[in-house]
Amino acid sequence: MKNNVPVGIIMGSDSDLPIMQEAAKILDYFEIEYELTIVSAHRTPERLVDYAKKSKSKGIQVIIAGAGGAAHLPGMVASLTELPVIGVPIKTSTLNGLDSLLSIVQMPRGVPVATVAINGSKNAGILAAQIIGLKDSDIQKKVLKYKEEMKEEVVKKADKLEEIGYSEYLK
Amino acid sequence: MKNNVPVGIIMGSDSDLPIMQEAAKILDYFEIEYELTIVSAHRTPERLVDYAKKSKSKGIQVIIAGAGGAAHLPGMVASLTELPVIGVPIKTSTLNGLDSLLSIVQMPRGVPVATVAINGSKNAGILAAQIIGLKDSDIQKKVLKYKEEMKEEVVKKADKLEEIGYSEYLK
Amino acid sequence: MKNNVPVGIIMGSDSDLPIMQEAAKILDYFEIEYELTIVSAHRTPERLVDYAKKSKSKGIQVIIAGAGGAAHLPGMVASLTELPVIGVPIKTSTLNGLDSLLSIVQMPRGVPVATVAINGSKNAGILAAQIIGLKDSDIQKKVLKYKEEMKEEVVKKADKLEEIGYSEYLK
Amino acid sequence: MKNNVPVGIIMGSDSDLPIMQEAAKILDYFEIEYELTIVSAHRTPERLVDYAKKSKSKGIQVIIAGAGGAAHLPGMVASLTELPVIGVPIKTSTLNGLDSLLSIVQMPRGVPVATVAINGSKNAGILAAQIIGLKDSDIQKKVLKYKEEMKEEVVKKADKLEEIGYSEYLK
Amino acid sequence: MKNNVPVGIIMGSDSDLPIMQEAAKILDYFEIEYELTIVSAHRTPERLVDYAKKSKSKGIQVIIAGAGGAAHLPGMVASLTELPVIGVPIKTSTLNGLDSLLSIVQMPRGVPVATVAINGSKNAGILAAQIIGLKDSDIQKKVLKYKEEMKEEVVKKADKLEEIGYSEYLK
Amino acid sequence: MKNNVPVGIIMGSDSDLPIMQEAAKILDYFEIEYELTIVSAHRTPERLVDYAKKSKSKGIQVIIAGAGGAAHLPGMVASLTELPVIGVPIKTSTLNGLDSLLSIVQMPRGVPVATVAINGSKNAGILAAQIIGLKDSDIQKKVLKYKEEMKEEVVKKADKLEEIGYSEYLK
Amino acid sequence: MKNNVPVGIIMGSDSDLPIMQEAAKILDYFEIEYELTIVSAHRTPERLVDYAKKSKSKGIQVIIAGAGGAAHLPGMVASLTELPVIGVPIKTSTLNGLDSLLSIVQMPRGVPVATVAINGSKNAGILAAQIIGLKDSDIQKKVLKYKEEMKEEVVKKADKLEEIGYSEYLK
Amino acid sequence: MKNNVPVGIIMGSDSDLPIMQEAAKILDYFEIEYELTIVSAHRTPERLVDYAKKSKSKGIQVIIAGAGGAAHLPGMVASLTELPVIGVPIKTSTLNGLDSLLSIVQMPRGVPVATVAINGSKNAGILAAQIIGLKDSDIQKKVLKYKEEMKEEVVKKADKLEEIGYSEYLK
Repeated sequence: MKNNVPVGIIMGSDSDLPIMQEAAKILDYFEIEYELTIVSAHRTPERLVDYAKKSKSKGIQVIIAGAGGAAHLPGMVASLTELPVIGVPIKTSTLNGLDSLLSIVQMPRGVPVATVAINGSKNAGILAAQIIGLKDSDIQKKVLKYKEEMKEEVVKKADKLEEIGYSEYLK
Repeated sequence: MKNNVPVGIIMGSDSDLPIMQEAAKILDYFEIEYELTIVSAHRTPERLVDYAKKSKSKGIQVIIAGAGGAAHLPGMVASLTELPVIGVPIKTSTLNGLDSLLSIVQMPRGVPVATVAINGSKNAGILAAQIIGLKDSDIQKKVLKYKEEMKEEVVKKADKLEEIGYSEYLK
Repeated sequence: MKNNVPVGIIMGSDSDLPIMQEAAKILDYFEIEYELTIVSAHRTPERLVDYAKKSKSKGIQVIIAGAGGAAHLPGMVASLTELPVIGVPIKTSTLNGLDSLLSIVQMPRGVPVATVAINGSKNAGILAAQIIGLKDSDIQKKVLKYKEEMKEEVVKKADKLEEIGYSEYLK
Repeated sequence: MKNNVPVGIIMGSDSDLPIMQEAAKILDYFEIEYELTIVSAHRTPERLVDYAKKSKSKGIQVIIAGAGGAAHLPGMVASLTELPVIGVPIKTSTLNGLDSLLSIVQMPRGVPVATVAINGSKNAGILAAQIIGLKDSDIQKKVLKYKEEMKEEVVKKADKLEEIGYSEYLK
Repeated sequence: MKNNVPVGIIMGSDSDLPIMQEAAKILDYFEIEYELTIVSAHRTPERLVDYAKKSKSKGIQVIIAGAGGAAHLPGMVASLTELPVIGVPIKTSTLNGLDSLLSIVQMPRGVPVATVAINGSKNAGILAAQIIGLKDSDIQKKVLKYKEEMKEEVVKKADKLEEIGYSEYLK
Repeated sequence: MKNNVPVGIIMGSDSDLPIMQEAAKILDYFEIEYELTIVSAHRTPERLVDYAKKSKSKGIQVIIAGAGGAAHLPGMVASLTELPVIGVPIKTSTLNGLDSLLSIVQMPRGVPVATVAINGSKNAGILAAQIIGLKDSDIQKKVLKYKEEMKEEVVKKADKLEEIGYSEYLK
Repeated sequence: MKNNVPVGIIMGSDSDLPIMQEAAKILDYFEIEYELTIVSAHRTPERLVDYAKKSKSKGIQVIIAGAGGAAHLPGMVASLTELPVIGVPIKTSTLNGLDSLLSIVQMPRGVPVATVAINGSKNAGILAAQIIGLKDSDIQKKVLKYKEEMKEEVVKKADKLEEIGYSEYLK
Repeated sequence: MKNNVPVGIIMGSDSDLPIMQEAAKILDYFEIEYELTIVSAHRTPERLVDYAKKSKSKGIQVIIAGAGGAAHLPGMVASLTELPVIGVPIKTSTLNGLDSLLSIVQMPRGVPVATVAINGSKNAGILAAQIIGLKDSDIQKKVLKYKEEMKEEVVKKADKLEEIGYSEYLK
């Protein structure tokens, strides 16, 4: 794994990668370095302990952890580090991710996980950027710029919709 | 902790004890020895790892783990031992234990937790006895006898109800 | 049905077989013999009673029962035998298996069903192996080895992912 | 138990009696005879089989079965008799009876249970009266009269409310 | 509409017909006559009132009503007739029929609807046959025979599965 | 009932009155006249038809209908009038009003019910005032004033909280 | 945007347009003018404030706002205008719109949103017409005519179904 | 409000204060300054806009926002600032906070809210400390120390429980 990058992205299984790559992509956009790997709470528990305990000394500042079902990865990592941990509940084939969401967000007093929406890994990346932006005003400016661009994109679409009407727009 | 007892009962917090004592009581009834302690997945993660990894060599055969909310204790213990782990979802003040249930039962392929009903710690104890009973026919006989006694108790109540009628019975 | 096999796998309908075969396959992997058949709680209730009551004398040690919807098979079998019963809630086309899960796990005091995840029949097989492993150290070693293999598989995937990056990995 | 009564009311536990007595009371109102007893699917499974199989020959026409949690009593009775079975989901302390409702109503093709509302045992009694009323026009007339009385009671309350206003009414 | 048939099958929309035809088919199997039509509680409320109020005098004994979403048809019909009404909750595209189920089953005291499973219209037909069978022993015998056939079908499948094994069976 | 009042408030049972009186009180505040009575969809279906059909000719402009459980009153009234109907789902003792909410809001295409929050009868009154305010600018101004007062009340509380601190505030 | 049209249709994203166009189409049917555009609560919050605050002075009488997930658009618009706001919960890919529904309907005391069914934008349009119809009897007549047409369409389908039978009808 | 404090705690209503004070108390423990006030998304929308837009220039680094029901406060603040926003779903009297949770966590792509458990305001405070700790190693050390103290407290309780046994412990 890379050294001295500010964000660690981990996920419980490579089947989570199609979702979790969105966090990586938005960090690329913000030009924030990250490492990305697989750490399974249930199949590699010692790897989890090792990852979480070494993360701070390696220079990581924020950990993004995605998992589905009985999703224990984010909470267990959070229990083992003083760094902020962002949890991404992955949609499941049976309960649509409600199980993942509750397994991640309902943490007991003392150990928070900053939970985003089901499959919300892009927002996990943005949240990491906002947190890192508190120390790095360049990144904070990029976040602000990103928000501006989103706004402009919506306005552009709205203008087009108002101009051509919904039937034309939907073609 | 005691040595060489066949059942380990653990819970995430002493607030779970009023529920989890039912597992202890039914094991007392079956004359199965156990140890009972607090192991918090989130506040004492290393204790969890230690407990789970040493359990087999200490002679434990079945682990009963109760937890509420984002209930990671049973699943994390299961990830760290080859012993069967029974999970007890504790009722929560907000979501009534639906969060605990899904956090415990929805384990990924490879790492099962034998989940019982919300607050079902008595059944966790009975299940432990059934499992130990496979090796110890005395205990299996006690399970059978327990089932007989339950049956008799129901029949006795039914007889009384049929005899005196529901209004009298409810007084 | 086979005689003197330690695991009985039953399911409410042959439509459950695509899911329930996973339990058989993992038992094959552990070289644990089993019988596998259909027992419908609602369409063949007497067959259910017969199956459950004879299971112990036939040599069965653990019963795995899968069912969907108003899933009564695991609980009814559990009511009729002193053996441990593992319940597999099958995903349903309307409520996604939440109905199956609650029908199986929410057993009353006195009669536990060791419930696994929705469609978690592979884990049901592993749990059976863990239980049988308490008596048979060869099987317990295989469970341990299986856990090791899972770990190695994750690590191998993680190494590959770290090496080639997520875009390459997803191709 | 009584012989030759048209309705059998059974429940899984005497803790269901405060709810299930409402079925008895409304049958008393309709002057329909019934027997009322406890039959636990999980603690007295053979009693369940026996009860269900003998019900028709004893003269029973409709069975009302109440149960909570993993509520298997109504469905198992329905599997063992050609008589119509009415299921009453009992409210539970953890999931409020959603578990009971799904365990009773989501029966597979081939074995219906006529399910009423959670804790809806009064309606179970009325439904039994409507069914018996198809053969017995006196009872059908009583059902009709009961509906008339309900209507009058509502109208009387509405008149009072309109007359005295809501503040006075709520005192 | 036909006159003097014992069962009325109604549904809120012709989009419910693919599900509701199963009730018709099983009544055909039992050789029970029925009428089948569309009555929308919300688009044809007066037709609903008319249908419900005339049903008894037309000779109908049991009404089967299917509806989805805010499913008011079964309950409103039940409010307008002394006949037993069977409600079939239709699966919806958004909430999978949980809305339909709760809208049908949670009737207030005084007006029961005999609710079957989501999309359970076949069971609605069987339940109607069981009810009519109380007056017509030929139909009751057919219900019994149907239950026997179901049992045999399960046993035949079980025999085949035991004989050829699951891999062959699944081909 | 009163004649020529712009709002009709109805509810399924007098047990809904403690909640539904809030609609009346806020209409009193806005000095909008209303009639208030009980109309049970299930116990007085003809009264419901009559009420809904006559409402427009009586001068009613908006109907507020509260009901719980299988809450059919708002939707059935909406099916019988061209007036806008506001539905208030009443909290239930079993499912907390989720049943009421889904029974009211999930109306089929063609017949809307303007649904407010569970137990949200005050908001039903405000919504009625907003609708009537479109024709009556005095009422619209009162709505605006009401919104101003709410704002001021919040600001006053905020000022106090900021001034005295939370510990003092909570005493 | 158009000036002086009575209805404003807004949505959080152009991905909501396939659903939200139904509101536009039914308003076309009623010959009610509207403007239709995109206003994102989260990406264009100031546009939201601006839109809501100017709506009344532009002549808008009713606002229809559709949004999905954490759906804040309808409630925030409602907080900023004295006009009635109709909320349309959009179905989501993870929680099917239950999140959207609760985010829209569960508004606090003081700020109602007239919520329709998940994806119920057609009904939002009809509700807007009913509200506007209170001031404009031509529109009210069209609503009445629309209800008549719905009724006739159902009756026509019912007649066809009764005539040709369900098998023919389903072809 | 105070100037130049790193944390802003806001809530939708003073009824949320008993829960939200826990965030303040833990920040007191970490010796992190904060301001605490009421900002209602629905009753004071302009105050919300003002608060969110000025927060960064005032020196705030992290905003903690608690709200219940259709809980729009955290998401709307997040839409108006580049600072990280932590959302606290407040338990509600009807849906227990499931509505609050989904309204806060299910944010669309582009605008994250770091959501904690229902009523999890203490964890919101800890998360804020973890975030601020990235810039301020004294605070990070305090977080670490806090985690140590939690661990010790659990171990102390576990020791006591093991020593005196559960019956004594529960007295």
